[in-house]
Amino acid sequence: MSTTIGDSNKQLIYLDSGATSQTPKQVIQDTQNYYEKLNSNVHRGAHTLSRKATEAFEDGRDAVASFINANSRNEIVFTSGATEAINLVASCYSRAIKLKEGDEILLTEMEHHSNLVPWQMIAKETGAVLKFVKVDFEKTGALDLDHMKSLLNENTRIVSFQHVSNVMACINPVQEMVAMVRANASSDAIVILDACQSLPHMKVDVQSLGVDFLAASGHKMCGPTGIGFLWGREDLLNSMPPFMGGGEMIDQVTLYESTYAPAPARFEAGTPPIAEVVGLASAIRYLETKLGMDKVEAYEHEIAAYLHKRLNEVDRVTVLGPPEGVQRAALCAFHVDGVHPSDLSTFLDMEGVAIRAGHHCCQPLHQAYGISHSARASLYIYNTKEDVDGFIEYLEKTIQFFTGLENIPEEGGDVGFVPI
Amino acid sequence: MSTTIGDSNKQLIYLDSGATSQTPKQVIQDTQNYYEKLNSNVHRGAHTLSRKATEAFEDGRDAVASFINANSRNEIVFTSGATEAINLVASCYSRAIKLKEGDEILLTEMEHHSNLVPWQMIAKETGAVLKFVKVDFEKTGALDLDHMKSLLNENTRIVSFQHVSNVMACINPVQEMVAMVRANASSDAIVILDACQSLPHMKVDVQSLGVDFLAASGHKMCGPTGIGFLWGREDLLNSMPPFMGGGEMIDQVTLYESTYAPAPARFEAGTPPIAEVVGLASAIRYLETKLGMDKVEAYEHEIAAYLHKRLNEVDRVTVLGPPEGVQRAALCAFHVDGVHPSDLSTFLDMEGVAIRAGHHCCQPLHQAYGISHSARASLYIYNTKEDVDGFIEYLEKTIQFFTGLENIPEEGGDVGFVPI
Repeated sequence: MSTTIGDSNKQLIYLDSGATSQTPKQVIQDTQNYYEKLNSNVHRGAHTLSRKATEAFEDGRDAVASFINANSRNEIVFTSGATEAINLVASCYSRAIKLKEGDEILLTEMEHHSNLVPWQMIAKETGAVLKFVKVDFEKTGALDLDHMKSLLNENTRIVSFQHVSNVMACINPVQEMVAMVRANASSDAIVILDACQSLPHMKVDVQSLGVDFLAASGHKMCGPTGIGFLWGREDLLNSMPPFMGGGEMIDQVTLYESTYAPAPARFEAGTPPIAEVVGLASAIRYLETKLGMDKVEAYEHEIAAYLHKRLNEVDRVTVLGPPEGVQRAALCAFHVDGVHPSDLSTFLDMEGVAIRAGHHCCQPLHQAYGISHSARASLYIYNTKEDVDGFIEYLEKTIQFFTGLENIPEEGGDVGFVPI
Repeated sequence: MSTTIGDSNKQLIYLDSGATSQTPKQVIQDTQNYYEKLNSNVHRGAHTLSRKATEAFEDGRDAVASFINANSRNEIVFTSGATEAINLVASCYSRAIKLKEGDEILLTEMEHHSNLVPWQMIAKETGAVLKFVKVDFEKTGALDLDHMKSLLNENTRIVSFQHVSNVMACINPVQEMVAMVRANASSDAIVILDACQSLPHMKVDVQSLGVDFLAASGHKMCGPTGIGFLWGREDLLNSMPPFMGGGEMIDQVTLYESTYAPAPARFEAGTPPIAEVVGLASAIRYLETKLGMDKVEAYEHEIAAYLHKRLNEVDRVTVLGPPEGVQRAALCAFHVDGVHPSDLSTFLDMEGVAIRAGHHCCQPLHQAYGISHSARASLYIYNTKEDVDGFIEYLEKTIQFFTGLENIPEEGGDVGFVPI
């Protein structure tokens, strides 16, 4: 991907798609087309524009259902993003099963804050206990599945984890983990998959994975901001109370009480993100029909391995996650001995290379590993090996610059102002 | 406003802006520009694009703060829409004050479901009591303020109502109602204003109105879908627990607990609706700078009166809300003796006139009035007197068509199939 950035003439090497992907022209155009030709409220209207907007919006539901091989379009609940999707299931499912003291929620050490903080809030509210599968930083750079097995028991009611880690780049073995839950947890235990870092990059089939809920974001998969979705098994969704109250999610309303519509409407209070669903559907068409998810996956596999190999060759660099030879997602979080991640990203930015530095919304994972921050380069379909080469070139220069500084003898004592 | 609709050559007369407004070109362009030139995640990044996206997003917060004369930009919490904004304050404020059995929440009979159902949910959860100010359908077509006064007492902890009714078109006297609350309710009672139908149409100044919270939607004020906001007094916002958990809203996170950022970040979990905030800011510039809210208000006052007058002249039509001579919003909900609202809207649609038929998310209001549905024509800045004339012309034809049918003698008994 090559474009100039801001007011400078630097060519942009955008390596931050793990945070937000760039948006294909057709997604922008389809969104624009919505506002110019279809813009109207959905469901409620009694006129042509409203019917057309409703059709475009509900076509988006079909597109998502088909993309993840959902059993029914009623299983797709549109949300403002993956964060709302996880909060929704955390809040509503916990209330549906009357989650109580002593019940256990199993997460992992690698979870993004969006799949951690909502469960902390639920645990505090209900007295349920949080447990965490450890990450094996030394050997596999992935989840310790033996540890997972040891944590599962008949009190385990909810299991929730990332499909792909946004820091470790490991691809968790969902089917194996689901089987482990089915064999060792409470018989009604559910599995929730945070698919934010997998859905944009590989074929995800909810039926073959065997999970019960899945959450994802539009803006990481070529779609607009302000949109995500929760997929859930229809029987589970319909067993849950609503998340928010308002228009659209109701059946009958009197002043003192209301009855609620079945899923998905029950969970879509108020005017939905109509243009955003149209944009998300366009992004899915782009990924699925124009490119093909097999090709996306194969291409990313290749650049992922290339990025990993090149980074591993750089002196002082340690890449987190599985070693070379193991299939990883197309991102590398890393630290550089002697250089702070923020200094790295700032210097690379001056060369037009956009990487990210920070905790990547995974403070506990960094704590477990013993650092507070890391740098991260994350790739997507528009990145090339040349992007990786450019990144490595400037990275090496930056490291050279900073570690060269180490050879300058330190000043003894304070420098401070020299009194006149 | 004149454009053709769908595949037909009919000129569109769009009279459904109370549900969703049309989107000015510059709003569409600014949104497109975001995706083409700035698209990146906010706050977290360590590169130029992310800084530019953050700047654009936070400029949006300033634009909203200035538009409603907030005391501080920290008082603006972006949400997916007004519905989320009201659910947020209902949930978080109730928890902040530990709302309990016997506490009273005062609403009005005219509330939109978005300002009713969330409170029913809170009442059910806490044991708080809902009370409702009556609408005087006969005389004023507005709230009965004497009744409101009689309902206020030291148990009243929360008062929430629409600024402008999306059915009655009355403009509620907010300052007078706030003064009544301050004088008669619990000393810490708060007032929440649903400004969905006022903010797009008139100058709204939260400080001079004296309310504590205000909710509004982008898509009714020339902005994109998928965006709205909650304004709240900063001390109140900071007294409230978070609504959802996730990235951005935290301070420090460990596996078992987290500390939260102050407002507004505390209430903005996850990647926010970035492009949508950029679009909303553009809509505000359009309304405030390009048009001027004084002019918007004056123009709407004029077409509101014209619409009302013309509709009142149509035989068999009854318009809900305040009588002619009283300032109303630029919308009329009405019923026609002998013609079902759905038939009206369907026939008008065939002529290219988009009105709405239904309960307009106000089932209880319609119940109180004694009907289940009404038709509604709602205007905005792009509508003209010619639009009103076109609407009236086709409305008269439609009524003539249906009531003409009444003169056809009814068939006696079943018609059914005639056996061969």
